[in-house]
Amino acid sequence: MIKVAIIGGSGYTGGELLRLLKQHPDVKITAVTSERSAGKDISVLFPNLKGYGLKFEPFKPSKVIKKADLFFLCLPHKASQDAVSYIYKSGKKTIDLSADFRLKSAAVYKRWYQTRHMYPALLKKSVYGLPELYRDKIKHASIVANPGCYPTSAILALAPVMGNRNLDTNSIIVDSKSGVSGAGRSPSLPLMFSEASQSVKAYSITTHRHTPEIEQELSSLLKKNINIVFTPHLIPMDRGILSTIYVSAKKKIKLSDIQKKYREFYAEEPFVRILKSGEYPTTKSVLGSNYCDLSLFMDTHGNDTQTLIIVSVIDNLLKGASGQAVHNMNIMYGLDETAGLTSISSCP
Amino acid sequence: MIKVAIIGGSGYTGGELLRLLKQHPDVKITAVTSERSAGKDISVLFPNLKGYGLKFEPFKPSKVIKKADLFFLCLPHKASQDAVSYIYKSGKKTIDLSADFRLKSAAVYKRWYQTRHMYPALLKKSVYGLPELYRDKIKHASIVANPGCYPTSAILALAPVMGNRNLDTNSIIVDSKSGVSGAGRSPSLPLMFSEASQSVKAYSITTHRHTPEIEQELSSLLKKNINIVFTPHLIPMDRGILSTIYVSAKKKIKLSDIQKKYREFYAEEPFVRILKSGEYPTTKSVLGSNYCDLSLFMDTHGNDTQTLIIVSVIDNLLKGASGQAVHNMNIMYGLDETAGLTSISSCP
Amino acid sequence: MIKVAIIGGSGYTGGELLRLLKQHPDVKITAVTSERSAGKDISVLFPNLKGYGLKFEPFKPSKVIKKADLFFLCLPHKASQDAVSYIYKSGKKTIDLSADFRLKSAAVYKRWYQTRHMYPALLKKSVYGLPELYRDKIKHASIVANPGCYPTSAILALAPVMGNRNLDTNSIIVDSKSGVSGAGRSPSLPLMFSEASQSVKAYSITTHRHTPEIEQELSSLLKKNINIVFTPHLIPMDRGILSTIYVSAKKKIKLSDIQKKYREFYAEEPFVRILKSGEYPTTKSVLGSNYCDLSLFMDTHGNDTQTLIIVSVIDNLLKGASGQAVHNMNIMYGLDETAGLTSISSCP
Amino acid sequence: MIKVAIIGGSGYTGGELLRLLKQHPDVKITAVTSERSAGKDISVLFPNLKGYGLKFEPFKPSKVIKKADLFFLCLPHKASQDAVSYIYKSGKKTIDLSADFRLKSAAVYKRWYQTRHMYPALLKKSVYGLPELYRDKIKHASIVANPGCYPTSAILALAPVMGNRNLDTNSIIVDSKSGVSGAGRSPSLPLMFSEASQSVKAYSITTHRHTPEIEQELSSLLKKNINIVFTPHLIPMDRGILSTIYVSAKKKIKLSDIQKKYREFYAEEPFVRILKSGEYPTTKSVLGSNYCDLSLFMDTHGNDTQTLIIVSVIDNLLKGASGQAVHNMNIMYGLDETAGLTSISSCP
Repeated sequence: MIKVAIIGGSGYTGGELLRLLKQHPDVKITAVTSERSAGKDISVLFPNLKGYGLKFEPFKPSKVIKKADLFFLCLPHKASQDAVSYIYKSGKKTIDLSADFRLKSAAVYKRWYQTRHMYPALLKKSVYGLPELYRDKIKHASIVANPGCYPTSAILALAPVMGNRNLDTNSIIVDSKSGVSGAGRSPSLPLMFSEASQSVKAYSITTHRHTPEIEQELSSLLKKNINIVFTPHLIPMDRGILSTIYVSAKKKIKLSDIQKKYREFYAEEPFVRILKSGEYPTTKSVLGSNYCDLSLFMDTHGNDTQTLIIVSVIDNLLKGASGQAVHNMNIMYGLDETAGLTSISSCP
Repeated sequence: MIKVAIIGGSGYTGGELLRLLKQHPDVKITAVTSERSAGKDISVLFPNLKGYGLKFEPFKPSKVIKKADLFFLCLPHKASQDAVSYIYKSGKKTIDLSADFRLKSAAVYKRWYQTRHMYPALLKKSVYGLPELYRDKIKHASIVANPGCYPTSAILALAPVMGNRNLDTNSIIVDSKSGVSGAGRSPSLPLMFSEASQSVKAYSITTHRHTPEIEQELSSLLKKNINIVFTPHLIPMDRGILSTIYVSAKKKIKLSDIQKKYREFYAEEPFVRILKSGEYPTTKSVLGSNYCDLSLFMDTHGNDTQTLIIVSVIDNLLKGASGQAVHNMNIMYGLDETAGLTSISSCP
Repeated sequence: MIKVAIIGGSGYTGGELLRLLKQHPDVKITAVTSERSAGKDISVLFPNLKGYGLKFEPFKPSKVIKKADLFFLCLPHKASQDAVSYIYKSGKKTIDLSADFRLKSAAVYKRWYQTRHMYPALLKKSVYGLPELYRDKIKHASIVANPGCYPTSAILALAPVMGNRNLDTNSIIVDSKSGVSGAGRSPSLPLMFSEASQSVKAYSITTHRHTPEIEQELSSLLKKNINIVFTPHLIPMDRGILSTIYVSAKKKIKLSDIQKKYREFYAEEPFVRILKSGEYPTTKSVLGSNYCDLSLFMDTHGNDTQTLIIVSVIDNLLKGASGQAVHNMNIMYGLDETAGLTSISSCP
Repeated sequence: MIKVAIIGGSGYTGGELLRLLKQHPDVKITAVTSERSAGKDISVLFPNLKGYGLKFEPFKPSKVIKKADLFFLCLPHKASQDAVSYIYKSGKKTIDLSADFRLKSAAVYKRWYQTRHMYPALLKKSVYGLPELYRDKIKHASIVANPGCYPTSAILALAPVMGNRNLDTNSIIVDSKSGVSGAGRSPSLPLMFSEASQSVKAYSITTHRHTPEIEQELSSLLKKNINIVFTPHLIPMDRGILSTIYVSAKKKIKLSDIQKKYREFYAEEPFVRILKSGEYPTTKSVLGSNYCDLSLFMDTHGNDTQTLIIVSVIDNLLKGASGQAVHNMNIMYGLDETAGLTSISSCP
């Protein structure tokens, strides 16, 4: 049994980790921390986890470090930096769900997060935890930077065509739609039921912090720097991200060739499904599962232009956060990659 | 491996059975029928069940009967009668999710369902499939009549106090609130998103067919006939039933005595939880699980009267339908009662 | 033009007053106060009120008092006390949407609100602002205590039968379902979209502060003290209250007699509609309007008992708050009672 | 008083017309037709319109034509053709909410609607009813083709920059998000509450019939043919459309110049509002109103590219259908353009 601790476990990603790991055959949760809820049973914050028998404790590093071998960090960005460094020095492993170790460049981090990165050396040690791209590195990583929810939906949708010379990689537009849980669990007016229900809005246009993360990974695949246009939207639903992605073609391309490429690229992947031609993914059909469903379309109705449209859906708290973290753990410890992640989405 | 078939599997209860049984360690689904969708992959109707590898077939009794040992029937009431009879004669087992074999009296059935019962003899063979009351009979049953969703929420909430002489059993009021999936999957105007969202309404006041089912079971526990007042409401949510139940007290009763009684009554039950004093159950915290959560309150603020208020929540498609059906199967086949039903509700 | 000011206008009732009064032919809004948002345009908090040209100002009584003749108070309970007293002494009129002047007994107020009432003498001056019961008093009132949302839905539903000797007024149960806006606009975890959506729960069982308000008015109609059982529920919708009300009959009563009584009682009322026999009201069909729709049912299916079931729906922010406040203003100033309140609910 | 009839009035656009016209000071509704609901009071289908005193009648042209001067047609496409022709020959006026007279080219109509247009000569008589572009023609029109909901949101968002040479008009992408009422009122599985709630999906990629309508109007403004990429999405809300529109810049452009252009373009328009720099429109803040709110953003974070992002919101049933129809009527009859359309959106 792997002994794991969850640091900062009172939010939605912490709750999902508790739920998933409780059902994981090879894991024992030895600690879950929360400063504000220290001493309380976890069911006070997670009524779904009644009868679990776990209490929140404060995060005292010297005490908690002894309890576990692997630490899932669900702290806000910046707060994660010290914790990751401490755990790393102790020779233990971290899966960090914050953004602190995702960007390889401390300068880019500073520009987007308006704070200095205190451990640039550790950025080189950390592995971007997208199993479909970095499985081998994850196996041997001590620090896994678990990807953001939007980046997961966008990078998986674009990775197979990043080498395609007939596509204009300077034209990529990612229009993403997210459920409200993606904004976290801290009460605020725009996230109140009566404000968010029955409404859709765009937000953080040109300024969302997941932009450089997507750009970093696409640039790495392309082996040249690119920029994208990324627009997130808030949708009146609890969970789920649907990204609609547009890439202009420079030459005529056959949709079937692109579809074939995707099927090959993800042939061995347990959590990526390519839908049949013309089939539309819905966020609802992946809720509660760790799947990313992709569907491909080609707009050729105009004479002059041709646009590849990729639609991607994930559960932002599973494949977009805690599910992917468990997947990373399974890889790090040589377990069956789907262990603890076999839950099937329900209807409705 | 138990070979099971699902008859009439294109609705929500059929879909939940497919999902639950697929994850059940001791079961193999050998057939699922649907007249209208015969020949189609189940993922056409259940996109959450992509990659399952099952097709709907038409329900040809002589053909399907050979394929399985146990039959889950998700047919509309009346249509179930012939199917149950056929399976019974073939010496195989049925768990019937329709209402056709729940009422012990063919006369009562006729009054509420406006159709004659063709197999009154079989009514005596069938067992009302509420494990908390009929576990021993279920073990040896050939026909299990799986309870209705509202009756499950109401009977479990009332059973422990049915013998209490200080309560006025002629005064029972069951005010239930149900998510939209409880009304089935056939398209109709009142169930459209734009009609049902942002609204609540009562329906079928004094005429809902679950009324005699609740009355039958409470009368059986009391050993005298009683009538209740039952009002169902439609709530803008996918799943879940919350029943608020009122019983007048004839004498002063201590809430703590009542709570103790409930804890004892359900002490050994894997799927009934009694909440702490003052704790409010929410439907959301049992969604996707097979739990029934109960909480007890006593209104003593008036001088003259005292009213026991019981709040009960279930997932109408799990404990209120398919989950309970799987529980019944586990009992019938001597399996671990929680097999296939260990899924934990998520937050949010 | 009546000059009106809204004190504490940053919440939902304040926003509705701004919206309604802006469209009122006989009113000019001269001030709207908010401590936290002082100096901001109202559209910052109410994007629906863009281009209105009004700014929040701090509530400085000596300054604001000169600006208006009538003051709508949307302050939290307790905070209203001083404001009402100040305005009264200045010889101007108040419609108070808080609970501070609804209960006639300072002792009852103290018991339920855990704070002393500082102006018991003013309680006698204030009129409970339910036009259907107190129209004549409202005409000449200086202080109108605008009723609570739940009490409005319950009292209107019960008033016509309070004198009926065949009903057991000791058995009244009010089971109410409210949209989330009823809980106010202050951010808190249970009111977040991801927590409140897809869920229903009961709350404040036996302790809700609207209980004594309902009891006071029913007792006044009955001319004897009665207690009721009142259970509020939170429903995943923005607005609307549906109350399902149960009253036991002591003798056989004809439903048609009861219905006739209701039609007569409310024959001249512009905002109360009695539905046809068997028709079910929905909250959605009164959203955005000032209507209270009532429907009556009699449960006679049991042999021994007979229960009158009354279903009542209102928009909690209109007839349950700001709409009723405007109605009261219209009465106080001798205007057409429906002025500013002619908006028809939309579908969907 | 203008005598108006609504032909095909049982759907959502018919219901909104009934609601709006009932409150219009210069209009008398003399007939509303529905084949299936003929003889029924309109409140059977529109419980919000209780007490209106109107019954549906069958659409018998020779009878209905005498009753009104102006006919609002809410028929399905194709069915509108004959009706428009009949009314036109009778010398009366039509506002057609179907798609039948929006496309100027019978060939384009045939390609996208898979049916021949029987009255190509009338296509030349009809005026595309977008007041902001065709006010003068609408004044004298006998046939107004009321624009589609998506086209209204897209064309208003793009019209002011169609002449801008620094923008690449071959790169326009319109990513639209619509509430469920946009799909009409006929019951179907994907529009059921339990299917559409808690989910987002794209649909009709490259094939949506509003595409040629948007292209026709943009081409007309540009005076050359262009094609766009248009992707509609279904959002779990009753009403509202948000379109996020992307246009690549060929040269550096200042956002403030673009914003100025929009303010000038719409300076005299009663129903188009340009938000402040950085402000995000929400669909909720225009629900129930006839406004189109627009906000402009420029993505310059990449070095090589610059993209103009326009966000546009409307209520699909008001500015996207029935509200715009009333606006057109006001223009045709020389009334105050805002008559009957002064309702303010509410919060929440």
